[in-house]
Amino acid sequence: MAEYTVTFKSHNKRVTVGAGTSLLEAAAKAGIVVNNVCGGDGICGRCKMIIKEGTVSGGTSAKLTRDEIKEGVVLSCLTVIESDCIVEIPEETLVKTEKEGKHDTERFHDFSDIIGRGSCTPNPLVRKIYLELEKPSLAKNIPDHQRICTEVKKRLHVSETQTGLKIIKSLPKILREYDYRITAVVGVRMNVAELMYIEGGNTADKNYLIIVDMGTTTVVAHLVDGTTLKTVDAQACFNSQGIYGREVTGRLISAEKKGIEYLQKPLVNDINKLIRSLIEANSIDIADVTAIVCAGNTAMSHFLLGLPVENIRRTPYIATSVEPPPLRAAEVGIQINPRGLLYSLPGISGWVGSDLTAGILATGMYKSEETCLLVDIGTNGEVIIGNREWLVACSASAGPALEGASVECGMRAEKGAIEKVYVQDGKIVCQTIGNTTPIGICGSGIIDCVSVLLQEEIINRIGKFIEKDSHRITTIEGTKRYSLVKGCNGAREIYITEADIENIITAKAAIYAAMKILLQRLDMKFNDIKHFYLAGAFGKHIDIDSATTIGLIPRMPRERVEFVGNTSIMGAKMVALCHNALETIVEIGKNTTYYDLMGANDYVHEFTKAMFLPHTDIEDFQKATQ
Amino acid sequence: MAEYTVTFKSHNKRVTVGAGTSLLEAAAKAGIVVNNVCGGDGICGRCKMIIKEGTVSGGTSAKLTRDEIKEGVVLSCLTVIESDCIVEIPEETLVKTEKEGKHDTERFHDFSDIIGRGSCTPNPLVRKIYLELEKPSLAKNIPDHQRICTEVKKRLHVSETQTGLKIIKSLPKILREYDYRITAVVGVRMNVAELMYIEGGNTADKNYLIIVDMGTTTVVAHLVDGTTLKTVDAQACFNSQGIYGREVTGRLISAEKKGIEYLQKPLVNDINKLIRSLIEANSIDIADVTAIVCAGNTAMSHFLLGLPVENIRRTPYIATSVEPPPLRAAEVGIQINPRGLLYSLPGISGWVGSDLTAGILATGMYKSEETCLLVDIGTNGEVIIGNREWLVACSASAGPALEGASVECGMRAEKGAIEKVYVQDGKIVCQTIGNTTPIGICGSGIIDCVSVLLQEEIINRIGKFIEKDSHRITTIEGTKRYSLVKGCNGAREIYITEADIENIITAKAAIYAAMKILLQRLDMKFNDIKHFYLAGAFGKHIDIDSATTIGLIPRMPRERVEFVGNTSIMGAKMVALCHNALETIVEIGKNTTYYDLMGANDYVHEFTKAMFLPHTDIEDFQKATQ
Repeated sequence: MAEYTVTFKSHNKRVTVGAGTSLLEAAAKAGIVVNNVCGGDGICGRCKMIIKEGTVSGGTSAKLTRDEIKEGVVLSCLTVIESDCIVEIPEETLVKTEKEGKHDTERFHDFSDIIGRGSCTPNPLVRKIYLELEKPSLAKNIPDHQRICTEVKKRLHVSETQTGLKIIKSLPKILREYDYRITAVVGVRMNVAELMYIEGGNTADKNYLIIVDMGTTTVVAHLVDGTTLKTVDAQACFNSQGIYGREVTGRLISAEKKGIEYLQKPLVNDINKLIRSLIEANSIDIADVTAIVCAGNTAMSHFLLGLPVENIRRTPYIATSVEPPPLRAAEVGIQINPRGLLYSLPGISGWVGSDLTAGILATGMYKSEETCLLVDIGTNGEVIIGNREWLVACSASAGPALEGASVECGMRAEKGAIEKVYVQDGKIVCQTIGNTTPIGICGSGIIDCVSVLLQEEIINRIGKFIEKDSHRITTIEGTKRYSLVKGCNGAREIYITEADIENIITAKAAIYAAMKILLQRLDMKFNDIKHFYLAGAFGKHIDIDSATTIGLIPRMPRERVEFVGNTSIMGAKMVALCHNALETIVEIGKNTTYYDLMGANDYVHEFTKAMFLPHTDIEDFQKATQ
Repeated sequence: MAEYTVTFKSHNKRVTVGAGTSLLEAAAKAGIVVNNVCGGDGICGRCKMIIKEGTVSGGTSAKLTRDEIKEGVVLSCLTVIESDCIVEIPEETLVKTEKEGKHDTERFHDFSDIIGRGSCTPNPLVRKIYLELEKPSLAKNIPDHQRICTEVKKRLHVSETQTGLKIIKSLPKILREYDYRITAVVGVRMNVAELMYIEGGNTADKNYLIIVDMGTTTVVAHLVDGTTLKTVDAQACFNSQGIYGREVTGRLISAEKKGIEYLQKPLVNDINKLIRSLIEANSIDIADVTAIVCAGNTAMSHFLLGLPVENIRRTPYIATSVEPPPLRAAEVGIQINPRGLLYSLPGISGWVGSDLTAGILATGMYKSEETCLLVDIGTNGEVIIGNREWLVACSASAGPALEGASVECGMRAEKGAIEKVYVQDGKIVCQTIGNTTPIGICGSGIIDCVSVLLQEEIINRIGKFIEKDSHRITTIEGTKRYSLVKGCNGAREIYITEADIENIITAKAAIYAAMKILLQRLDMKFNDIKHFYLAGAFGKHIDIDSATTIGLIPRMPRERVEFVGNTSIMGAKMVALCHNALETIVEIGKNTTYYDLMGANDYVHEFTKAMFLPHTDIEDFQKATQ
């Protein structure tokens, strides 16, 4: 196979790739992360690059102006390399993780109060324990190793300790050098404590943990102080695996074709970049990051650990493992303290992962006397129904529309994103995060927008434009779009297309149908649900009326509905900060029954019925259920 | 520093060594194991080599004949390399492990019945469990990893399993390739089972364990079948660390000067050689050896694992660890299955190691209602007194005389060794192992010999020859010797020198004094001891009257004295074959109090009193204690 060299001028990077490789893949191989949100389908138009030298093939796109095409601008996802090339990447094509992070933090600060929601005692998974040991004497001449372990057991109330050979070898020197005043770094699991390493003197106040929600579309990382148990900072970025497919299934196929490491590497890189950015922004030494706790769907957990995925997407949908053991983070390439631990949380099945066990933990539904329903809206929509007696889970493929991806002007909830759309004095008004010039629209804004367009009768119940407010509706390449914000004075035009609306309807229909089927199987109605938890990347900013108007959720007594935000990261944080929650989440994973929608004959029927706004049967949405 | 090349012609091996290196060390570096027993002190005369080319320095020795010196024969331990050399090693200088092994096996076969002495259930530390797993279906779609672990937990009655990432990755392929019929190889510790690896099909009957007693002078290895729990074979060799000192202290000093790896390597090599020899002799695949269990004094355990030893020999005598965790054997270079486990058993203190906890386990004294005394005679002599309520231990440096080393004609208990000496019809008669021509004298023979010489009034109570049977007593280089077997018809002369007898008296005095001091501290007398266990490398072949005659043990009612042989290997085997014994031995290690003789002011006084045959105070030896 022919091989070509691609030089990225702006980054001073060069990679060799095989014939047939897309330019986007070449950039990923060079470690350049691109602002692509559509998964390489040529839809979002965000992955523009300029061919300075060399031959490429691939179609043009309506996303490119005539001038851009003349200048050599291409959509890198649609462009195949045909010779050695020299490429320039415009500034706006690159992901700017660090800047984004700061705004995320503001939105995530309310997570610092999560301890106490569960009934867990604050006690991080990895603890630093300062010890002033008694010096050895003829009367008390126990060995160095046992001297430390005895004290650690006493302090942590555990019955057993484990220590690696390398650490045991290091003990005599460090104990004597620091006059028996040392800090033991201890990872706790069940009733066993692992003596991970020893530091001289008292370093107990320098202990940080990273919590990660590995979303299919978005990766979110929080930095937590293991001493104060406060969230220090949070950052997020799009999942760089996007080039291998927008949805999980595409990535599973890619992993099978190319090898699991092609999917593992970009995810690990994303996490490493978030960690680096978090610790640099907060002047923390990477050696003081002692653990990382990751939650995500089962495919993501497999990608993280490099586990084989080929049986997940084929009946009977068998995962390799849903309860992987704690590992040394370095074993998968995650860069924290070299002996730091990686806890990939336990999931339920091949299609319901640890993001949901974390959600069950975070909402406390596993110990509720009343029956609860948790719906987690991400690229997959998962539904859990249950109480302290039983828990049942299912999963539906929703697509990333409700996260702001696969929507032309969609973006993540960050500065400049339209997060609210409402009608004031007969006019449609947009409110952006940070009250700045809008640059796109995020999940909560998209739901508001569809709701407003429906209520204002600009679209009909199947999501098509009614020619009424025609000066805001234009047709480009056969697709109609509604202009929310007109582009002028250098500002971008923000609009929503019929295709966007269809993606949104598909997403909400998939989720709603999943809820209905699961209720039917349990012989229950929405009215039997006493607590309705709506979780998702859009945090707590979604509007309940808008969500009901479009048919994402049924109309229910307001006090029963709770927007719980990112419960994946919330639950993972609970495990990180109170180690007895680790046992609880393992139990949750074991005790939750998976119901496979793909085996349900009536799922397609329910899905089709939900492809209306709000639904074919509108009674669930018009009046309060009794 | 100048460097020289030493070529060992006979082995076709070449090594580079620094100036000042002894020829014996050079041979060790080349991996050539020499039949040396005196620890490089020029006493045993067993390490002869011939300098073919090159310059060496170092004294001659009475061990070399004039002809030998002319031919270039040197004692390699006394010879320092001064230029590039070419060296030849005579056949008799080399250790013949394999041949020795067969005779050892005969003597060790009685170990196959040890299960049952303790109250342990047969259940090896590493088990192979054949599983016929239910194939996945939509109804039972649990992941591969959990499918196996659930079954393993059920079969082993454990609450938790651990699995490494590499093994989890391997599961999907092997499960499907072998149609869900696999053998799980599981290491058990406390209530946790480690899934070490998986084999396709049913390999459950191919599971072997190695048990090692790491003596200062002798390394013994047993091969055990994990299915039948029978001892398949046993082999032994001298500890190659001998070139760094005959006794533990010398080796601790060497480790500090040269680096612990200089002591670790020869020990690991010895063990590897014994393993290789055992599996080759019995046509076993090395991949089917799943675990190795090692017992030894604390210094040996440290050498095995490469743990720092510098604090063991300095007050307050602090070991690095006496309870090291189970490791992957490969981590220290031991060659069994690459994922096989190494259990280095827990000891008590820097000077009482796992050979003694194994002895306490093997004798069952830890659960005895009556008070017992265990004396383990090796290069160190350790004494344990106690019962199921309490256990106290001490250690005395005895030297290797009672193991057949540091005695000119001494040898290990193998074919051709004089193992019994007695008087018949007024004549001193020698009986050899295998009834062949004697080639040396082993521990039990040495004790008999001194006893007979004393009773026949050939030596006096301080071990000096009385000129009576003068035709058998000769003086060579100022040292008197008694000829037991005259050298004729090509047979070697076997004799005992005054220096040998002094070494034996020193050894027995050190041990006897240790028993006396420990009893005094406990305010007890020999009469309070209801079970007197005598353990040591000489197995069960020692003569009780001889041992009493020379003052090694007091005269006690015969039914109270039991010769228990190598309790180190016996206890280690119990742990290997019944994993609940692992918990017991950990408890034994924790619950035994170490009493330090070096801090006892009256030890030297007791030692001096014991430097007579049998003792200054002879009443303990003349009549039965009440």
